Amino acid sequence: MTTVLKLGGSVITDKSEPETVASDQLETLIVTLATEAQTEQLVLVHGGGSFGHYHADKHEITPTDGERDAEDIFAVHDAMCRLNRHVIDICHDHGLPALPVAPLSNATRDSDGDLTIQTAVIEQLLTEGFIPVLFGDVVSQVSAGATILSGDEIVTSLASSLEADRVGLCSTEPGVYDRQQNVINKITAYEPIKDAVGSAEQTDVTGGMAMKVRSLLDLETNSHIFDSSQLADFLQGQSVGTTICTEQ
Amino acid sequence: MTTVLKLGGSVITDKSEPETVASDQLETLIVTLATEAQTEQLVLVHGGGSFGHYHADKHEITPTDGERDAEDIFAVHDAMCRLNRHVIDICHDHGLPALPVAPLSNATRDSDGDLTIQTAVIEQLLTEGFIPVLFGDVVSQVSAGATILSGDEIVTSLASSLEADRVGLCSTEPGVYDRQQNVINKITAYEPIKDAVGSAEQTDVTGGMAMKVRSLLDLETNSHIFDSSQLADFLQGQSVGTTICTEQ
Repeated sequence: MTTVLKLGGSVITDKSEPETVASDQLETLIVTLATEAQTEQLVLVHGGGSFGHYHADKHEITPTDGERDAEDIFAVHDAMCRLNRHVIDICHDHGLPALPVAPLSNATRDSDGDLTIQTAVIEQLLTEGFIPVLFGDVVSQVSAGATILSGDEIVTSLASSLEADRVGLCSTEPGVYDRQQNVINKITAYEPIKDAVGSAEQTDVTGGMAMKVRSLLDLETNSHIFDSSQLADFLQGQSVGTTICTEQ
Repeated sequence: MTTVLKLGGSVITDKSEPETVASDQLETLIVTLATEAQTEQLVLVHGGGSFGHYHADKHEITPTDGERDAEDIFAVHDAMCRLNRHVIDICHDHGLPALPVAPLSNATRDSDGDLTIQTAVIEQLLTEGFIPVLFGDVVSQVSAGATILSGDEIVTSLASSLEADRVGLCSTEPGVYDRQQNVINKITAYEPIKDAVGSAEQTDVTGGMAMKVRSLLDLETNSHIFDSSQLADFLQGQSVGTTICTEQ
């Protein structure tokens, strides 16, 4: 069984301070992973939080507005590598065989912005018993220099290309809220919940809840948006938070 | 025109001290590159020197002896990323649009140790006007965990897959010596110089001169082994140091 799990940037960093890891929160999640994960193959993805977004905002690089200055592009990438190193180190501290896969070294976008992640290295790391850890990053884009690649976009791309059995996004929220601020149990189409997700949440440069839900609806497997208190249940195979169902 | 240039680990680091950059030497090379490079497309590769080799030796990982401990594998990779960051920063200081491509995130070896580097991202970075910078690293290998990938092996792989027009290895030596310690001007076959290169030089874990010469002889383009004083001449299109000729 293959699981793709994203640890949200807002969960593992303190977004109010540049380049600040939420160390206790990150460690709790990794301990949960180390004790509860029953999947044969696990791919981790983490967001940018106060590392990536801080530098992306500073240099005005977005998923669609490209940047050609190598120093500015590298500033985003290098910050994300610093965050990734924290994640990898804590994984090793708790016996998880994590190794980084940096999207800048692997992925490309065509001129329409469509993403290709080369999965050969990811599949081989999985087969060899490792946990590949990807992260929001900058990637080269045809005719645009480099653009931002969000952790969410990595998750939907890999869930599809690796034919993942389980897909989870561990976020700061217990799921997707309806207009009365109740967690929606199950989403099967975008239209009915459009107003709720479009307005309820602040978005950052990489999209927010509306974009998450829309891209997850396109997957061929169910996915789950939940908060860190639900990670153990997710890892044990339960439907937690909001389940985004494949379209029938 | 596409040029693949390797900066040897012994040139850009002080091999006598763990994790010590030869800063003046590195800066001199990068300044030469920034002022003399006339190629349209440049791929840089750098060796491990006192960063990669120190950790590879410590954890006994070689190009053929695999390692399965993710923490040990990451120790080598992370050290190489630290060296790479120095190289990238100095490139940016002198206006070269360098961006890293980490082999661990991109390349794989099959069970025979044969290497595949995914060139899509490298070709796209080149087309977008960047200078991809690869480096000796660890890579996953089928049934072996991860093994060491040398800068030399990256050069021969990329020279072939990118159909490079110029291939240069900037080393600590002015070329390949014959048995009288004179630099050989031109090598067209391995047999005649076998005794000289097999004995004359100390080798590190990634091979030394004999392996360099043998793999460069297999290329479909001439290549050059030279020292840093000859870099400007190499960049201007001259045959410097020892030229390894394609077999006729």
